Amino acid sequence: MAENTLRPVGRVESTLTDRTAAPRQPDEGAPDAWLVFDDRYASALDGLTPGTDVLLLTWLDRADRDTLAVHPRGDATRPLTGVFATRAPDRPNPIGLHTVHILAVAGTRVHVRNLEALDGTPILDVKPLLTPDR
Amino acid sequence: MAENTLRPVGRVESTLTDRTAAPRQPDEGAPDAWLVFDDRYASALDGLTPGTDVLLLTWLDRADRDTLAVHPRGDATRPLTGVFATRAPDRPNPIGLHTVHILAVAGTRVHVRNLEALDGTPILDVKPLLTPDR
Repeated sequence: MAENTLRPVGRVESTLTDRTAAPRQPDEGAPDAWLVFDDRYASALDGLTPGTDVLLLTWLDRADRDTLAVHPRGDATRPLTGVFATRAPDRPNPIGLHTVHILAVAGTRVHVRNLEALDGTPILDVKPLLTPDR
Repeated sequence: MAENTLRPVGRVESTLTDRTAAPRQPDEGAPDAWLVFDDRYASALDGLTPGTDVLLLTWLDRADRDTLAVHPRGDATRPLTGVFATRAPDRPNPIGLHTVHILAVAGTRVHVRNLEALDGTPILDVKPLLTPDR
C-alpha cells in the first residue's frame, strides 16, 4: 500500500513569487514558466510533446490546510462556501490542478504557457488530458 | 509551509474491490458509488449540489510508486511511455482524477455516478469543474 507522503518530482520556475499578486485563474495574466524535474524522473517524461496540452498537478505548499469554508474569491459579500465547492487554494489537501500548453521540452525542463503557480511550487504529477486510449 | 503528508478526508464506498477488474475509464462500465467523508469535513461540503459534475481527487493507495514508464493500457505491443504521458495508476504520486456527476448529498455521504475507484480508496479533494467566477 502506498504511504501517504508526497514525493515532489520537480519544481516550478516562474517570475511569480508573491501569493497576493498571483492571478486566480491562468487567463487572468499568468506568465509562461518552466517545469524543472529532478533527473531521476527523466524517463517519466518520455512522450511529453511540445504543442500539446497536459494537466499539471502541484502541491500548493503555502496554503492553509485547516480552512474548510471560504468566501469565494475572497469577496466577503459572497456567502461562506465549503472549500470542496470552490477552487480556493486553502483546503485540507492543497493540490493545484492546471491545464498547461507545452511550448518546449529540453531534457528534464519543460516550458509551459500561462501557469498561475508560484516560483518554487512542488510538482506532483503530469497527466495527459483524458483520451480514452491511453 | 504545508507539510508533504496527505490527509484523507473520506473514503470511496463501492462494489469495485479488485484492481484487475476495475475499468480503465468511467465510460467502460464503472458503477455508481458513495463518497463517505469524515464528519470533521462536513462544512467543506457545503455548496455541493446534486445534478452537477465535480472533479474528485483520490489517492490510489494500491499503486506502485516506483514505476516511471509503462506500456499504455498494459498492451505490450505499444511502446514504453513515460507515466507523465499516460493515465496509468502506477506513478510517483498516484493521484486519481475523476469527473463525477453528483446524484445525491446526504449529510457527509455523496452519491456519484460511474466512479472507477476501488472500494476503500482514500478521498483527497473535491473541486468544481473550472468556472472563472469561483
